[in-house]
Amino acid sequence: MPKLLTLNNGMKMPQVGLGCWKIPNDICADQVYEAIKAGYRLFDGATDYANEVEVGKGLKRAMDDGIVKRQDLFVVSKLWNNFHHPDHVKLNLKRNLKDLGLDYLDLYYIHFPIAFKFVPMEERYPPQMYTGKADEAKGILTEENVPLLDTYRALEECQREGLIKSIGISNFNGGLVADILRGCSIKPVALQIEHHPYLTQEKLLEYCKIHDVQVVGYSSFGPQSFADCGMDLAKNTPPLFDHPVIKKIAEKHNVSTAEVLLRWATQRGVAIIPKSSHKKRLLSNLNIDDNVTLTEEDLKSISGLNQNLRFNDPWDWNNSKFPIFH
Amino acid sequence: MPKLLTLNNGMKMPQVGLGCWKIPNDICADQVYEAIKAGYRLFDGATDYANEVEVGKGLKRAMDDGIVKRQDLFVVSKLWNNFHHPDHVKLNLKRNLKDLGLDYLDLYYIHFPIAFKFVPMEERYPPQMYTGKADEAKGILTEENVPLLDTYRALEECQREGLIKSIGISNFNGGLVADILRGCSIKPVALQIEHHPYLTQEKLLEYCKIHDVQVVGYSSFGPQSFADCGMDLAKNTPPLFDHPVIKKIAEKHNVSTAEVLLRWATQRGVAIIPKSSHKKRLLSNLNIDDNVTLTEEDLKSISGLNQNLRFNDPWDWNNSKFPIFH
Repeated sequence: MPKLLTLNNGMKMPQVGLGCWKIPNDICADQVYEAIKAGYRLFDGATDYANEVEVGKGLKRAMDDGIVKRQDLFVVSKLWNNFHHPDHVKLNLKRNLKDLGLDYLDLYYIHFPIAFKFVPMEERYPPQMYTGKADEAKGILTEENVPLLDTYRALEECQREGLIKSIGISNFNGGLVADILRGCSIKPVALQIEHHPYLTQEKLLEYCKIHDVQVVGYSSFGPQSFADCGMDLAKNTPPLFDHPVIKKIAEKHNVSTAEVLLRWATQRGVAIIPKSSHKKRLLSNLNIDDNVTLTEEDLKSISGLNQNLRFNDPWDWNNSKFPIFH
Repeated sequence: MPKLLTLNNGMKMPQVGLGCWKIPNDICADQVYEAIKAGYRLFDGATDYANEVEVGKGLKRAMDDGIVKRQDLFVVSKLWNNFHHPDHVKLNLKRNLKDLGLDYLDLYYIHFPIAFKFVPMEERYPPQMYTGKADEAKGILTEENVPLLDTYRALEECQREGLIKSIGISNFNGGLVADILRGCSIKPVALQIEHHPYLTQEKLLEYCKIHDVQVVGYSSFGPQSFADCGMDLAKNTPPLFDHPVIKKIAEKHNVSTAEVLLRWATQRGVAIIPKSSHKKRLLSNLNIDDNVTLTEEDLKSISGLNQNLRFNDPWDWNNSKFPIFH
């Protein structure tokens, strides 16, 4: 079983969870159910992943079968960009709860520090890369003038009402994290960011440690997920699974390169949310800490691969040039 | 004479000004006076530079001598980190005005997206890297929980009162600039950032162009200013003045490497604020556009030196780990 991390509000969060991004709708309920049977308790979902109804079905089946109770689970979702206005935050959250079939979330993130124009749910849900029909025809995205603290404070209100147990921020750079810390009443418990050996984020990790904000890393395998989406940068980057440094360490410890990548993250104190449709890997990911322990030298070699190479950069979204990492 | 740029509020700003950072107090009034005689109209000062009384004396002498009128000048100052609280913003600004002997500023920046604990002026002014005696003894800096938009909105109030003609932001990363744009009532006219061939900031420049925020580049010569301060990173970085790529282009055009560096910036549309104590260089800097025009290929070669190498990173201030660029 993964280690339980204590968040800055006292809540316990498993260091390993199941990432729900790109789990296909037709197999999603089953995968969530199987993951619970395998021992997973944290499910990292989002409005944007467009599979919360199915995640919810998997959770419900496991609860109905008596495998887990609601209080054993740590269910995570994320506010999407079109719902940043304080008038719309709770609308998004209530839809997440309805789709998941729950009456509260354990953790709710602001998915990106970017505010899109509101789109009514009747028009499109989840809106994803859509801010209206006219914009879609032009291939553009329209922003909304809601600063991040307004959105964050609306989430604080949702926490006070008991709809969420804690607040997180995702894809915020260090300067934006600092500004939330300066303006919040309820501290964010977690920052979710892209994190892998090509993007090691040493200083942001150190800053979050100082301020007791748990870092959750996504895309632990680096280019992999983005190459699958057809991104050129990712396709042209040597896969970490085949990287000689990672392979050598994997061979030395007699584990897979994937295990090396995940263990490097957990040994740095980062929480991880890999996904897998293979039962064996699902288990091996969950119990990564039991499979292998890397040496200080291993960790250093892996971190030495850093290139500040980021695959998830909204600058590129529909040519919209969102500058959040520049 | 330098080109006059039209800011997003209609004001005209010279593309070349005199940077007042590190002008020694004993020669500062004379240098400002000489610069005005040479044709300078923009003076880029700051609370932190600790020489505003002397800058003001230079300005006054030139006005008293009938060389310029107040309305011919473009006087710039910057709010220091200890005065971010809305209760203290005007206190800092009024002190700038008193020291400079003026009743308004043309442009007033937030110097850094970092809020230090307030220090009364009687205790120390300018406070620079100081947040109290106890902190000083420990070598630390204490922050204040004032989010940037609160400070920015206090500046908007100062503009409405006529104490400043426009607002700027400095050392903000792209994500922070976007959040100001989402939350402001009066748009910032300028973003002042470190800018040189080792830190070309392409995307931030492009973003500012799209949103009509003028970029002002400081440290146009790269490591030079920071090597003078004794910074190891700067001392260990090859000086741009001696860089073979810059030298080759300088020789081709029969100008100095300094001129190449400045002209590269102005041809990118960036405003610059070099300083010099040499009359000849003062003139050559001011009239940089008349001295040389680089080819597209020159510009590309120079921009190709980019290493995302930043010398002014508050992460390093008193080991305080301010994450604004991470």
